[in-house]
Amino acid sequence: MTTARTSSLTLEEFLLLPETKPASEFIDSRIYQKPMPQGKHSRLQLKFCNAVNQVAETPQIALAFPELRCTFGGRSIVPDASVFVWERIPFEADGEVPNVFEIYPDWTVEILSPDQRATKVISNILHCIRHGTQLGWLIDPLERLILAFIAGQEPIELTGGDSLPIPKFLTLDLTVEQVFGWLKVAD
Amino acid sequence: MTTARTSSLTLEEFLLLPETKPASEFIDSRIYQKPMPQGKHSRLQLKFCNAVNQVAETPQIALAFPELRCTFGGRSIVPDASVFVWERIPFEADGEVPNVFEIYPDWTVEILSPDQRATKVISNILHCIRHGTQLGWLIDPLERLILAFIAGQEPIELTGGDSLPIPKFLTLDLTVEQVFGWLKVAD
Repeated sequence: MTTARTSSLTLEEFLLLPETKPASEFIDSRIYQKPMPQGKHSRLQLKFCNAVNQVAETPQIALAFPELRCTFGGRSIVPDASVFVWERIPFEADGEVPNVFEIYPDWTVEILSPDQRATKVISNILHCIRHGTQLGWLIDPLERLILAFIAGQEPIELTGGDSLPIPKFLTLDLTVEQVFGWLKVAD
Repeated sequence: MTTARTSSLTLEEFLLLPETKPASEFIDSRIYQKPMPQGKHSRLQLKFCNAVNQVAETPQIALAFPELRCTFGGRSIVPDASVFVWERIPFEADGEVPNVFEIYPDWTVEILSPDQRATKVISNILHCIRHGTQLGWLIDPLERLILAFIAGQEPIELTGGDSLPIPKFLTLDLTVEQVFGWLKVAD
């Protein structure tokens, strides 16, 4: 269960606090610590980021990051995976990836932990969508279900062999089955 | 936690089974039993139905029902509350309310139980929206949060003093605070 602490901190003061493990998020003046990631969560997060970076990194289209703090629109959130179009990434002068992302991700992915409240996670996905994010995935490993959130549309429920919606800037074909197939390690 | 049983039954065979308590739902050839409703759930369900019927029953605009089985589009679901526009209700010849509703509700309301998986509940709300339902509410008493699902729109997150979306056929002003205020009994 997500733990919430009412906070008298401002967003700026929250950002000065030391990072926690798991990460804490600042939402509507409350601090929420994310659940401790478990095996399936960790595996899906890694495989998702790899699947995106495999097609997006070399041609400099986009980059996927696991557990990256994104601070925008009054919240500081840490999506399980976030993807940024290349041009939007504030690379440092030497070309290195920056530490601080004060922008919305173009694609946000949340992976539901067994005891996590989906509504709070959906609230973060909707926060992203309201601020410019094109696509949000909510992956529920227990129900083998992915909900896709797209700006200006009702959410789409995807299961089994359904093709997953992918942002236009990427060429990537994935079905729900393939995503949950990542949970199986190769022989 | 919702319990799922893989079933080799057809929808027609499922409907011939005796009703369970709590009710069972038939979704994608699986049978899911709803969680046992607790105090807050029960109270919100009752107060919601009363709030709707108070403005909608006498002028014959609509009717709200708690725990009504609705069978359509290949699923048989039991929303925590469902509202039907008057003209769509298949009243019996003598004017009595029918037992069997093989139609989608115009407004579906789900109240999240403490351990319930929101994704499965959202899946049912989206099933309704796909089949013609105008509005779905997902009420999360723990987070004091209501998600509103509207056809052709991204979901809306509502908290505190936010005005709740209401179907056009009804005149009803409600804020999130008022809805959760129903949990307090009058002195």
